[in-house]
Formats: sequence, C-alpha cells, structure tokens
Amino acid sequence: MPGISQKGRLMPESPIRKLVPYSEAAKQRGIKVYHLNIGQPDIPTPEVALNAVRNFSGKVVEYSHSAGIPSYRKKLAEYYKKHLINITADDIIIGAGASEAILFAFQTIMDPGDEVIVPEPFYANYNGFAINAGVKVTPIFSSIDSGFALPPIADFEKSITPRTKAILVCNPNNPTGYLYSKDELEVLRQLVIKYDLYLIADEVYREFCYDGNTHYSCMHLEGIEDNVILIDSVSKRYSACGVRVGCMISKNREVMKTALKFAQARLSPPSFGQIAAEAAIETPDVYFTEVLQEYLNRRDVVVKEINRMKGAFCPTPKGAFYVVARLPIDDSDNFCQWLLESFDYKGQTVMLAPASGFYSTPGRGKDEVRISYVLNVTDLENSMKVLEEALKVYPGRTN
Amino acid sequence: MPGISQKGRLMPESPIRKLVPYSEAAKQRGIKVYHLNIGQPDIPTPEVALNAVRNFSGKVVEYSHSAGIPSYRKKLAEYYKKHLINITADDIIIGAGASEAILFAFQTIMDPGDEVIVPEPFYANYNGFAINAGVKVTPIFSSIDSGFALPPIADFEKSITPRTKAILVCNPNNPTGYLYSKDELEVLRQLVIKYDLYLIADEVYREFCYDGNTHYSCMHLEGIEDNVILIDSVSKRYSACGVRVGCMISKNREVMKTALKFAQARLSPPSFGQIAAEAAIETPDVYFTEVLQEYLNRRDVVVKEINRMKGAFCPTPKGAFYVVARLPIDDSDNFCQWLLESFDYKGQTVMLAPASGFYSTPGRGKDEVRISYVLNVTDLENSMKVLEEALKVYPGRTN
Repeated sequence: MPGISQKGRLMPESPIRKLVPYSEAAKQRGIKVYHLNIGQPDIPTPEVALNAVRNFSGKVVEYSHSAGIPSYRKKLAEYYKKHLINITADDIIIGAGASEAILFAFQTIMDPGDEVIVPEPFYANYNGFAINAGVKVTPIFSSIDSGFALPPIADFEKSITPRTKAILVCNPNNPTGYLYSKDELEVLRQLVIKYDLYLIADEVYREFCYDGNTHYSCMHLEGIEDNVILIDSVSKRYSACGVRVGCMISKNREVMKTALKFAQARLSPPSFGQIAAEAAIETPDVYFTEVLQEYLNRRDVVVKEINRMKGAFCPTPKGAFYVVARLPIDDSDNFCQWLLESFDYKGQTVMLAPASGFYSTPGRGKDEVRISYVLNVTDLENSMKVLEEALKVYPGRTN
Repeated sequence: MPGISQKGRLMPESPIRKLVPYSEAAKQRGIKVYHLNIGQPDIPTPEVALNAVRNFSGKVVEYSHSAGIPSYRKKLAEYYKKHLINITADDIIIGAGASEAILFAFQTIMDPGDEVIVPEPFYANYNGFAINAGVKVTPIFSSIDSGFALPPIADFEKSITPRTKAILVCNPNNPTGYLYSKDELEVLRQLVIKYDLYLIADEVYREFCYDGNTHYSCMHLEGIEDNVILIDSVSKRYSACGVRVGCMISKNREVMKTALKFAQARLSPPSFGQIAAEAAIETPDVYFTEVLQEYLNRRDVVVKEINRMKGAFCPTPKGAFYVVARLPIDDSDNFCQWLLESFDYKGQTVMLAPASGFYSTPGRGKDEVRISYVLNVTDLENSMKVLEEALKVYPGRTN
C-alpha cells in the first residue's frame, strides 16, 4: 500500500476539532454545551447579502474571473477607500476565504524552507498553510502580562535569518483580541525596510474595534507599498463564514501578477459567495453599530467575570471577538477535555479552545484558554458561572 | 524590494488566457469572436439547483463541515451507487471544485520532488497544481494518430522512478475527449499494483459519453481500493462551474484522514455551492438525455467539418466536450493569435486553444488545437466555416 506524504503526516489536527468527540458525547449524555470554542458568530448575515443570492436570475452559474467578479472588486475598492485604504480593483485577488488568500500569498513570496515570523499565540491554521507551502513559522513570544502587545523589536531581529521572507500579523488578533497600535505597526514598517521583508497583515476583524479605538491598517504604512500584503475576508465582517470569500491585496505588481497565476490554476472563487459579498457592501451602517455594541457587551461580561474568578486573569482586548485568559490550571488540553468529559454544573458545561494550540513553541499556553464571545449575553453569563464552578473542583487546579 | 518565489516564477500562465487580450482587441474592432477555447458550457444549470439557493431560508451563512455538508455527502454517495460506485459519505471530502480536490490529493500523497505520471496532452492546470505542491509531472506521449488512446504499458514502465508516487488520468479526457476502455484501466490497475502507486482519476466528464459507450470508473477496479483516488466535480455535470464544488473520494482511510487535515486548515467548502450541488442530485434524467444529444450533435458538426478541411484531421472522441484536431499549421500559438489579431471572415473569427499548452514536452502539439464544443450547432457551423477560410490564407500553412 502506497504511503502518505511527510507533509501530510506533519499537518496538525485542529486544536479545537480534537475536542469535538468529547463535546458530542457530552450532548449524548444530555448535557448542554456552551460553544465558546469557535469563530462562527451567531450574528445574522445582512439581509441585503442573502437577498442578492435569493434573487439570482442567471441561467448558468458560470466561472467568474480568476481574480474575482470585476464589479465586485470595483465595489470592494470603494469599501476600502472608506477605510482610507487607497487601492483599485486591480490590487485585489478574491480567494475562497482568507484561507486561500493566505496560501496564494505564501506560495507567491516563499519557497519551501523559507521562513515567516509570527507573534505567538497565533491563529492555528497558519501552521497548516505553512506546512502546505513547505515554509517554516518562526514564533515570537507575546505575553499575556502585556496584554499580548507586539513583542520588542529585538526579539524580531534575533529571529531573522537569510531565509526570513515575511512577518505575518493578525490585527485585530485572533486568538488574543489584541489591536496593534499605529506605533507598533511603525515598528514593523522599520523592520520590513531594514531587512527587506514582506509584511502580511490579516485584518479580517477590522470592523471589530472597541472603546473608541480605530483600526490602523498595514496599508496605511508609508513607503513600504511593495512590501505589504493585506489579507481580508467577509466571513466575520458580515457573519458570512460559509460564503468562502476573502481576498489578497497588494500594490506590488509582481506579487499580484504571480498570485494571479495561482488563482488561474484553480479557475475562480465561488460565484454565489461573491454575489452575496458584493451586495453585502451595501449593508447599512446601523448593522455594524448594533453588532459592535452587542460584541462589546459580551466582551465586558467575559472579561469582568473571568477577572472575578480566583487565580484567573483576562486582559481587556480592544478588538475581534476573542480573549485569551490565564486560568489556575495545570494543562489547558486536559482541562478543556475534562470540562466536556467529567464535569457539569446543573446539566451545563462549556467548550473552550486550549491555548496550547495557538502557540508553536512546545509547552506554552498550558494555563491559557481562548474564549470566543460568539454567544448572547445570557448564555455567556451562564457559561462564566459554569467555568467558575469548574475551576473550583478541577483536579488539576494549580492555586 | 523583496522577491518572488521560484515556484511563483515557474508557475505557467494559462495557455488560453494568454490570448485574452487579442480576443478583447478583436471585439474592440467590431469582430464577432466564437469562443471555442473554454470549458464553460452554455447549457443551463438545472432549475432544481438554482431554486435551492434561491430558497435559502437560513439567517446565518455558516461554515459547513470541513469535509462538506453531511446531508450532501450522503446524497452524493447515493448518486455514486447509481453509477455502481460503492462508497459512503465518509469516503468523500468536498473541495472548492475539482481543483482544490486535486491539490488535497497531491499534498496528501506527495512531497516536493515526488513524481506523478500523466499521459499527455493533459489538462494544463495539472502543471499548476504540481508546481503548487512542488511535485514533478512526468508526461507520457499519447498520439492523435491512435485517437489519444492509453500509451503502451512499456512507456509507463520506462518513466517510473523511485520518486514516482502516482499515475493521473482524466477520463473522459480533457483536452482530447478520449474515453478510456475497461481494458486500458485494467492496464493501469496492473501498473499500480506492480509498482505500488496511487491511481488518481479525474472523472469530471463521467456523464458525457457518446455512441452507446459507458464510463468505466477507476473505482470499479478490483483489489486496488487503497490505491485509487477519484476526483470529481459538479461543474460540468450540471453546467455549474461557478459553484466551485468538487470532491476527492478514496477508500483509503489513511489518505482520507490526512486529506481532511488539509481541508480543516481552510475551514470549509462554499456553502451556497454545496446547497446547489445537493439539490442538483435531483435533476431529472431527461436533462441529461437532452444535454447529451445536444453535445453529440455538436461533436458531429466539429468532427465532420474539420475532417473535410484539406490537411486537417480530427479523431472522433467518445466523451467530454472537447476535440484535439491536427491542422496544417506551423505553430498553433501563432495560428491562434493570428486568428484573433489578423484574420476575419465576414466580420467573424474563432478563438481556439493552442494544443502546445496541453503538452509538457517542448515542441509537441504545435500543429494541434483544442476545440471545446460549448456553442450551439449554428454557431459551431459558422465557426467551422471561419476556420476553413482561415486555413486557406494563414501565412504559416504547412501543406
């Protein structure tokens, strides 16, 4: 029997999906499981987007342009102009989600053996994309004690080798919710100039900034237009994860010309998803006002409740809809499994993501979990009560 | 300014898309261009598929399961049972088109430097997927003089090296329309057993078989269940290229478990496309009867008319909706460009795909073109008249 590739063997299993069988078993036992482990929002997709698909009047669902439907890219450029990001339709390649866009970017600028620096904890699938492209992720430690701020410039410089091709940041951050400041992005600007690197910025949570903070995009950095690759998606912005529409944006002509060849090889991104995404640009502002207020209320519940628990600590992130919290536990993988397998409070338990899966340095994140605040406030309050009670009796409690 | 990957530089431009600027310019000059260069059928997508999307009643377009919507995979397994392919929902991973499914297969079974044998001419994007995965395509020559039948077993054996991991065939074939017989598949079965290889079969044109011939699937081959990977798509079957729904199928548990990790890293395939594809399984049989008759009429026009032209030759393929024809020309790239740039017959011209782009051996296919019969019979008759007149005056005519 022929074998499996080394790449395939190295490919990590999702840190979240590992727990799914335990969650299923808990439900079988009649236990209510609050899912705080996923990035699937419960917010409705805007009606204007759904209606565009419902009103599809074509006779044939045709391939679109490999870079995406031209009218969609044109409208998308206008969306970015509103965010003071000055690009044209030609600077955009639509991908099947940010996932495909990141793969295009990796394949375009890196060969097997090349390296990309990423502050950790980071979105676990970056590992998968890196293995897919044969490139190495070099993690730089960002600490919960500083709220997951950008690590010092010296830490980046220590990690740069002749094979380093890029720095990748997610801003606002998944899993930490951290929103990088203009000053922090300025540090990155200096680094990419000094070492002639690409800066890949995953900004899919752009809209989700709290407490009066505004998002500063990598596209606002001056003088490094040829170094910057913006990754984006409509999944979170419009709560439309299933449409599979994201994009890769760069002013670098050579990068875009090359990425387009990868895009052409797979013919086109999903047509229905693009139709929904194009219409979604007309989503009224009030939608975002309401959604942001809802997320803010949820964040406040989670942060307040966790910080009330003895031995626990949660920074107050300014973006996205995640927090990484430190808990008085020996091992977050064990703890999250134990929550599903051996614990309930009044017939309820919570499913969390062990933070270990978001670190690539072995041993890190063992006393941390990621919590997605994608449930309504009442469910979140119940979840926090469950977590509090769980920590009181967890056998691996550390203090 | 940071550079481009070697991979990105190697990535070929589509042999068809190179001609697009010339086609656009011809249209600018008021010339009607018959597009026989593409695999985008003009056949309507079944209403049952379109209506399923139009009737979408969800509030949130959510991620689906990474392997595809369970109810869709279950129905799809029943579709295959009708074709005497005995699989279950667990043997299927849905991809964003056959494109993504092939990438999953390549990544799962091959590492950079490994080799896959493909009879040429072959679907040009296989080159793109191979470069993406860092693997080498080893072409085996199939000749227009034998109607593009499977090359002799000795030719395969000569090309097998320790790095050879798989044989890839497209059946019915794009670009040749050739339908492999049961005996030819039996030859492949013996090869994969003898050399412990995978057999990847791209069967996206399964439904398109003519003259009373039936399709024999790689999944029908006995005793090599662990070696076979079936690639499929709904793009051509239901004339729904834009939904971006294909799949990878294998009985090999290890292969499927590994491929699922690649699928999980990109979260999920497009939800709307899957909704359309699931409903499309209910397409009434009369749809296929009509579509097949239409394609048969078209094929007959193209084959008959080309064989009437002096110095031209076209085999009569039994499947798909393509032919590769030999024309009395010096260089198919030049000829196809000249058709768009310098020729018209009564204000009309044709856009064809130079066959050189479907060969990876340099110099081959220079006197061949691929013609997709995706236009109605009248347009095809006009196109053939244009081609005949063009051949009379083409400066690079060879006999």
